[in-house]
Amino acid sequence: MSLLTVGSVAFDALETPFGKTDKIIGGAATYITLSASYFTTKNKLVAVVGDDFPQEMIELLQGHGVDTEGLQIKKGEKTFFWSGKYHNDMNSRDTVEVQLNVMEGFDPVIPASYQDCQYLMLGNTAPSIQKTVLERIEKRPKLVMLDTMNFWMDIAMDDLKDVLKLVDVLTINDEEARILSGDYSLRRAAKTIMAMGPKTLIIKKGEHGALLFQGNNLFYCPALPLEEVFDPTGAGDTFAGGFIGYLASTDDISFDNMKRAIVYGSAMASFCVEKFGADRIVGLTQEEITARVQEFVSLANFQI
Amino acid sequence: MSLLTVGSVAFDALETPFGKTDKIIGGAATYITLSASYFTTKNKLVAVVGDDFPQEMIELLQGHGVDTEGLQIKKGEKTFFWSGKYHNDMNSRDTVEVQLNVMEGFDPVIPASYQDCQYLMLGNTAPSIQKTVLERIEKRPKLVMLDTMNFWMDIAMDDLKDVLKLVDVLTINDEEARILSGDYSLRRAAKTIMAMGPKTLIIKKGEHGALLFQGNNLFYCPALPLEEVFDPTGAGDTFAGGFIGYLASTDDISFDNMKRAIVYGSAMASFCVEKFGADRIVGLTQEEITARVQEFVSLANFQI
Repeated sequence: MSLLTVGSVAFDALETPFGKTDKIIGGAATYITLSASYFTTKNKLVAVVGDDFPQEMIELLQGHGVDTEGLQIKKGEKTFFWSGKYHNDMNSRDTVEVQLNVMEGFDPVIPASYQDCQYLMLGNTAPSIQKTVLERIEKRPKLVMLDTMNFWMDIAMDDLKDVLKLVDVLTINDEEARILSGDYSLRRAAKTIMAMGPKTLIIKKGEHGALLFQGNNLFYCPALPLEEVFDPTGAGDTFAGGFIGYLASTDDISFDNMKRAIVYGSAMASFCVEKFGADRIVGLTQEEITARVQEFVSLANFQI
Repeated sequence: MSLLTVGSVAFDALETPFGKTDKIIGGAATYITLSASYFTTKNKLVAVVGDDFPQEMIELLQGHGVDTEGLQIKKGEKTFFWSGKYHNDMNSRDTVEVQLNVMEGFDPVIPASYQDCQYLMLGNTAPSIQKTVLERIEKRPKLVMLDTMNFWMDIAMDDLKDVLKLVDVLTINDEEARILSGDYSLRRAAKTIMAMGPKTLIIKKGEHGALLFQGNNLFYCPALPLEEVFDPTGAGDTFAGGFIGYLASTDDISFDNMKRAIVYGSAMASFCVEKFGADRIVGLTQEEITARVQEFVSLANFQI
């Protein structure tokens, strides 16, 4: 089934204890579509960049089978830019600079050829933009998934709660779940958040794995302990792309299949952090992915 | 097979956001033996208390089948006392008061009837005391497990490294693994620590679960997300007691059985935090334990 992803395509400049980059390709929708490309060939993108965005980066996405008809290129404008610096423990970072540029006036236009999408991934952008996308899709997709962050909880909580009523799956991290629910206990937080709209909630805990909640069902997928986390940028989006890409490819939204999707998403995220930016999720082989998923089976499997 | 536990039996006074206690029964060996009592009936204790320690607390242990022949009662002396206060997030605590009392001169005497023990649990005490225990056991047990804490890494690192050469399984938390190895990456830290002696390493991550390392084998058992963590005191010791109690009862130290033991230990710890002190691990039924272990199966199980 076809997957539509709406979100940012951007330049990032990153600094970690292992080194720093110049402007490299970044943005939520970049990581999501690249990650999903290993599962579904019907992979459509709506995003906006400036005319400073290199053609070869667009070709990189196209080379992964991403349909870029919905990628707007704004003449005379500049691409969204973010730079960040990670602390030594890699679990926290500071934003060094943000230039919204084209993202400031992002008007998500959905090409007619995208209207049949069955799976919709609303990457992290303003909740009002996410809602506009939903209004512009004529037939509600089978599954709508939304990612957001604490920034929007701080400045646009009402808009966020408004769009949450319309989505099936929400993905946030543990800190954001606590802010959104006002509850420290993630188990209680999940109940509160699911009452806001999404029937399924994924709470990402970084190196501690991910929790999947749906009604009274609960699944905990560990993260693979790695010798080295080189750069965590994009890991959450890569996870989301693997998750929804797997669901779209199997077209099965049962809880058991969502558990498998969480494992595939976690495997994709474990690759992402091994190199700078999206370097490691470009040109992966199916054999590498299968072997990594088997590492998760071995990691988590036990017989009572 | 019989299990011998050496460690503290103490008074604790606890304060959490949910309330506070007077002096209640505490100490590593108390939690370990109570937890192990649900798995093995050959459950022997070496510890020391003062004559202020109430007979009914000793009977509580005996009522759980714990052999207290090795519990020394020092006339005219006072029992080890610890009081602590938990912060609102329950993940950190302050020690309010410590009175070592009888623990200061603890000389671990092993009764002759204990010499046949096959499983030995060295609860958290001074590494020099842990080593003395090993020297006083005539025939090396089949499995020796040791728990320690950052305190001993600060003041007795050489003694600790000395005793680590002699043990099979070490259990510490993630912060302690980073201190002991000098490495932030838990995967690399595990390699470094296993090279110090213990072939098997358990890294406890509290609400994030536990990691089991042995050679190149790796297992991640999640913690059960709970609506309420009432009091974390003793959870690590309860985990250790469930782990080694399960191993002793099955007398199987294969990696696959250790994985099961981690799940049983995690289940026991999940009970422990539901009430103050050891209240919840007194009088559990086998049915409750079986049902809780099934919650872990449901939590972690997936099919690829």
